[in-house]
Amino acid sequence: MIIINTGNGKGKTSAAIGQIVRSLGHGFKVCLIQLFKHKFFYGEQNILLKLNNLDFFSFAEFHPNFYFNMSVRRIKAQCALAINKLKYIVRYDINKYHLVVLEEFNIALRDNFIDKHDLLRLVKKLSKKSNIIITGRNASKELIDFADIVTDMKEIKHYYNDGKIAHKGIEY
Amino acid sequence: MIIINTGNGKGKTSAAIGQIVRSLGHGFKVCLIQLFKHKFFYGEQNILLKLNNLDFFSFAEFHPNFYFNMSVRRIKAQCALAINKLKYIVRYDINKYHLVVLEEFNIALRDNFIDKHDLLRLVKKLSKKSNIIITGRNASKELIDFADIVTDMKEIKHYYNDGKIAHKGIEY
Repeated sequence: MIIINTGNGKGKTSAAIGQIVRSLGHGFKVCLIQLFKHKFFYGEQNILLKLNNLDFFSFAEFHPNFYFNMSVRRIKAQCALAINKLKYIVRYDINKYHLVVLEEFNIALRDNFIDKHDLLRLVKKLSKKSNIIITGRNASKELIDFADIVTDMKEIKHYYNDGKIAHKGIEY
Repeated sequence: MIIINTGNGKGKTSAAIGQIVRSLGHGFKVCLIQLFKHKFFYGEQNILLKLNNLDFFSFAEFHPNFYFNMSVRRIKAQCALAINKLKYIVRYDINKYHLVVLEEFNIALRDNFIDKHDLLRLVKKLSKKSNIIITGRNASKELIDFADIVTDMKEIKHYYNDGKIAHKGIEY
């Protein structure tokens, strides 16, 4: 099954994290491949790194604003590593996970940091054996067409818009 | 700060769970008050019950379809217990938690199982000291007006609609 969390509102990543916890709670194995977010920045990562049955791969350099400050070349290199990890799973570990989460892959696709045909092919193969969650704004039409559950997380209101800054424990 | 996860799509509860994990990951104390969901049914609950710094109160009888099968009198009794717990926190433990999650309280409010003025008063008081997440469809206009972040989780697509049943690890 393929699940897509998209939209401009809050909740795409946190819903994926909740889904990981749910899956682990049933004793299933889970894999999280995270783009653009370093594993020592977000609060949830301190907990996730300690949970059994979760393989956690984070492809980002340390700075949290990595995505906004980095050269395209370096972002593409990180994305290539993430896609290689996914290829490895599809080739060698396709029966291993109950759930594979592809964090922010919608953004990587939208900005052409990963190849659409590559990703679609891998996701289609993997989805025969595993549930997949793909997060990030601006999900591609092809992915939406192929998905089983798509949620558009729509911002009705956000204090950011009043010029306030991100809160520890809420936004990160 | 008050955060509302509402809408007809998937992700309201899982985003709240993700937010709990994020908050705990920073070492904050969290309280989860859950209506309509028994603590031994959902996968995530097996993990949540083991995490430090989380106080977890579940107000539901055992059967997962509790809400659909129960008498109004019994549902109201459960909701009254949940509101009492919230009153207790506001009176005696108002400085204790970084985050308080009120799971499915939007539904309880919509169906008049809890008093709107009671809930608004408690939420307003508590929000001076603590972040609050309220989940469930059909959030009330008054709560939305008072909230800082509101996300409408809109269903674009769901395999349920093809008559398929809920999957373990995905929907529960």
